[in-house]
Amino acid sequence: MPDSDVRRYCQDHAEAFLADLIEWLRIPSMSGDPAYAGEVRRSAEWLAEAFRRTGFPTVEIWETGGLPAVFAEWPADDASASAVVVYGHHDVQPVDPLELWQTGPFEPELRGEELFGRGAVDDKGQVAFHLLGLRALLETSGRSAPPVTLRFLVEGEEESGSRNFRAMLQRERARLACEAVVVSDTGMWGRETPTICTGMRGMIECDIDLHGPDIDLHSGSFGGAVPNPLDVMAGLLAGLHDDQRRITLPGFYDDVRPLSDRERELIAKLPYDEAEWLATAASRAPYGESGYSTLERVWARPTAEVNGMWGGYMGPGGKTIVPSDAHAKVSFRIVADQDPLTVKKLFDDYVAATVPAGITAAVDWHTDGVRPCLTPLDEPALLATTRAMERAFDREVLYTREGGSGPEADLADVLGAPVVFLGVGLPDDRIHAPNERVVFPLLLVGAEAAAYLWDELATTLG
Amino acid sequence: MPDSDVRRYCQDHAEAFLADLIEWLRIPSMSGDPAYAGEVRRSAEWLAEAFRRTGFPTVEIWETGGLPAVFAEWPADDASASAVVVYGHHDVQPVDPLELWQTGPFEPELRGEELFGRGAVDDKGQVAFHLLGLRALLETSGRSAPPVTLRFLVEGEEESGSRNFRAMLQRERARLACEAVVVSDTGMWGRETPTICTGMRGMIECDIDLHGPDIDLHSGSFGGAVPNPLDVMAGLLAGLHDDQRRITLPGFYDDVRPLSDRERELIAKLPYDEAEWLATAASRAPYGESGYSTLERVWARPTAEVNGMWGGYMGPGGKTIVPSDAHAKVSFRIVADQDPLTVKKLFDDYVAATVPAGITAAVDWHTDGVRPCLTPLDEPALLATTRAMERAFDREVLYTREGGSGPEADLADVLGAPVVFLGVGLPDDRIHAPNERVVFPLLLVGAEAAAYLWDELATTLG
Repeated sequence: MPDSDVRRYCQDHAEAFLADLIEWLRIPSMSGDPAYAGEVRRSAEWLAEAFRRTGFPTVEIWETGGLPAVFAEWPADDASASAVVVYGHHDVQPVDPLELWQTGPFEPELRGEELFGRGAVDDKGQVAFHLLGLRALLETSGRSAPPVTLRFLVEGEEESGSRNFRAMLQRERARLACEAVVVSDTGMWGRETPTICTGMRGMIECDIDLHGPDIDLHSGSFGGAVPNPLDVMAGLLAGLHDDQRRITLPGFYDDVRPLSDRERELIAKLPYDEAEWLATAASRAPYGESGYSTLERVWARPTAEVNGMWGGYMGPGGKTIVPSDAHAKVSFRIVADQDPLTVKKLFDDYVAATVPAGITAAVDWHTDGVRPCLTPLDEPALLATTRAMERAFDREVLYTREGGSGPEADLADVLGAPVVFLGVGLPDDRIHAPNERVVFPLLLVGAEAAAYLWDELATTLG
Repeated sequence: MPDSDVRRYCQDHAEAFLADLIEWLRIPSMSGDPAYAGEVRRSAEWLAEAFRRTGFPTVEIWETGGLPAVFAEWPADDASASAVVVYGHHDVQPVDPLELWQTGPFEPELRGEELFGRGAVDDKGQVAFHLLGLRALLETSGRSAPPVTLRFLVEGEEESGSRNFRAMLQRERARLACEAVVVSDTGMWGRETPTICTGMRGMIECDIDLHGPDIDLHSGSFGGAVPNPLDVMAGLLAGLHDDQRRITLPGFYDDVRPLSDRERELIAKLPYDEAEWLATAASRAPYGESGYSTLERVWARPTAEVNGMWGGYMGPGGKTIVPSDAHAKVSFRIVADQDPLTVKKLFDDYVAATVPAGITAAVDWHTDGVRPCLTPLDEPALLATTRAMERAFDREVLYTREGGSGPEADLADVLGAPVVFLGVGLPDDRIHAPNERVVFPLLLVGAEAAAYLWDELATTLG
C-alpha cells in the first residue's frame, strides 16, 4: 500500500468530507450553556450516524448524567491485536461576542483554504478526519477491518470541564481496555512545522460572587463608609499575583514539576519568533511570570486568569452607586504534577481570608477540574505516531506542548495506557474566539496520518 | 398670618398636589441615557406649565446645549426687595435593576404614607412642594406677590453631572442676580430630627476602557503570556486604596480641608446609631478610611468608588478566555477645597503610569465634575432657613452635611451669593436605587417651610 494511494483517496473524497463536516458544524453544540443541551444531543446523534456510515459495527450513545458521549468500536480481524482508544469531543465553546464573527458561527463557510465556523478545528474537524482516514486505509488496502481494534470515545462536555468524563471512563473501563490512547484535539507548531504535543496543562474554573449592601446605594450618601463589592473583587483578583507575576496562593507552586534544562533546551530549539507569536495573539507585548520565556509560560507554568467580570452599572452615562453585587469568572491553568482539587482549596481559603466584614463571598467551582498530563519522549506509542505524521507530512516531526487542557490525564490514569496526540490545528485558528477556522487541506493530511497510524501502532504494540 | 392657616392650606390641597406630582413622576426624565432626552424635555415642559398654573408671570425653558432647564420668575411688589434663586432639578437617575422595583419606577403609587417612584424625592417632589408652599403663602396672606423676588432655576442634567450648568449660570448671571440661593435637593437626619444641610461633597466620574489582545484569546493557548485587561483593571482599581483605605493618588489629599475639632464635636452630637445606619445602608459592616467615623467618612472625606465594571464572558457556565477588553466606571467624591479637575489629572496620570505594555487605556470623563461646597454656620440666610424649618416642624432644627453632590458650589461661585439647603428627604428614601420613595406628609411640611421662608429671608436680607 504506497502512501500515495491513501493520499489520493483523501483528496478524491475531500468534497463529500467537507459537505459532511459542514452539516455537523451547523449544530450549535455549546455545552457551557444549558439552553443548548438539546443541540449537544443532536450533535451526538449526527456523529453516531456518521460512525455507522463509515462502517463501525458497534455505535452507541453513552449517557453521562450530563451531556451525551458517542462510543464506536471496530474490532481488528485478529482477536489478539492491540486495541486503541481514540478520543475527541463533539461539543463546542460559546460564540459571543457574536458581532465580531464575519459569518455566523454555525453557518460554516469555506473561504479559500479556510473553513470558518465554531468547532471547525476544536474539535469536530479533528474527529471527522479520522473517519475519512479509516475509509482510506480500508479502501486502499482492501481490508475489511483495521489492524488494531479501534474504540472511539467522543465526549460532549469537554468545553464545559468534562464533568462526567472521569466517572464514565471508570464505569466503562472494561469496554475501553486498550494499549494506547490517541487524542485528536490539539494543534501543531505551524503549517510548515508539523509537531506532536507531549503535554497539556490542567485547569479548574469557578464563578466568584460577592455580595455587599442588599440594595444599590447612592455613592454620595454611603460611599466611603461601606465595602463596595466591585472594589473588593478588584482587590481579590489583583492580589492573586505578586509583582513578578507569580501566583500568591501559599503553597501554589509546591507540586509544580520544574522544567528540566533538557526541556528548556528543546523548547528553545523551536523556530520561535516573538513578533509572529504576538501577531497570532493579536497582542502588542508579552507579559507574564519573571524568569520564563513566552513558550515556557504557556506550556509549563501555571496561571490564574480572569475570564469575565461584571457588576454595578454597565449602561451608557454614569450612575453613582455602591453596587450590591460583583461577579467574576476565574480559571487556573495548572501543570504536572499539580492537582486541581488542591488549587481549589487554596483559592477557597484565599477568598475567605481576603473579603472584609460586610461582604459575603461564594465561590462556585464548575467541576473538579482537569488534570495536567505529560507524555515521555521515549514512549513507543509516541514514536509510532511520529512515523505516521512524518509519512503524511513528508518531513521531520518535532515536539511541543499545549497550554490548553483536556481530559487526557484521566484517560492515562483510568485506562492505564499511554496517551499520544495526533492533531493538525494551527496556533492562529482562533479556537474559543470569534471566526474560528481550520485550514481545510490540513484536515486531509490529518486523515492521511490517521490512515497510517493504525499499522504503525500495530507494529509497535503488537 | 398664623402658621396654622398655612398648614391647613397645605393639608387641604394635598390631594390635588399629589395628583399633579404623580403626573410629573410618570415622565421618565433620565438624563444619563441619551435615549431619554425627549422625556427630559417633556418633563421640562410639564414643569413650565405647572409654574404658569401657580401664577408665575415669567416662565421660560432654557436651552443649555444639552438637556433643558426651566426658569420661572415672580417679582416682589416692592422693587427694592431682595431676590432669591431657588434651585432644583427635574431629571432623574436610571432605574436598573428594573426587576427589583415592586411597582414600575414610572408608575408612581402611594402606599400608606409613602409615595414610590423614580424622582419622588430626588428631586421632583422637592421642587413641587415649593409650588404648593408659595400658593399657601399667597392665599393665606391675601398677597398677590411674594415678599422677595423669586427666581426658580430647575435644571435637567443634575443626575448626569450638570455638564452645561455652570455655563448657563454664567450666561444668565444678570437674570439670576440674587442675595441668596435656596437649594431643595437634600434630606434631613430623620423624620423626628429635622436638620439643614451645610455642605456637600463634589464629584467627578469617568469610564475606563482597557484594551488588550485584539481578539478574545484561548486562555490555555495564550494565558500567562499576554496581559489580561480584566486583571490589569483589577490591579488598577485595587491600587487606588492603601490598606488604611486612603486614596493612593500622589497629592490627592493636599487640598482637603481637614475637619476641625469643633466640626467633629458637632457631628458627634447627632443621635447616630451605627446599627440603624447599617440597616439603612442594607449593609452588615462599616468600612472605610482609618481614623474617621462613619459620618465623617461620608460627609467630610473624599472617596474613590467603582460604580460598574465589566468585560470578558458574563454568561452561564465557563469560557476560558483572555478577554480583549475591560471596562469600569469610577467616581470620586471630593470635599472642600478639592478641585475636580485636579483629581482628573491625578487619575489620568495614575492610569497612564499603571497599565503595562500591551494594554491600551482610555479614560473618558463624563463632565468637568461638580465642586464641593460648605455653608458657614453663622450665615444669615442659613439662620432664616432654620427659623422657617423650625416653624414648620415645631421643633429645634440641627445641622448635617450631605455626602452627595450637586451644582451648589457653582451657584455660590457664579452668583456670588450664600447657598442654603431646604430639603425634607430621608436617609432611607432609596434615592438612585430601586423603590425610591418619599414620605408624602414630609412634602407637605416642606411646602409649609417654603411658605414661611420668603418672609424670613425678606426680614434677614432686607
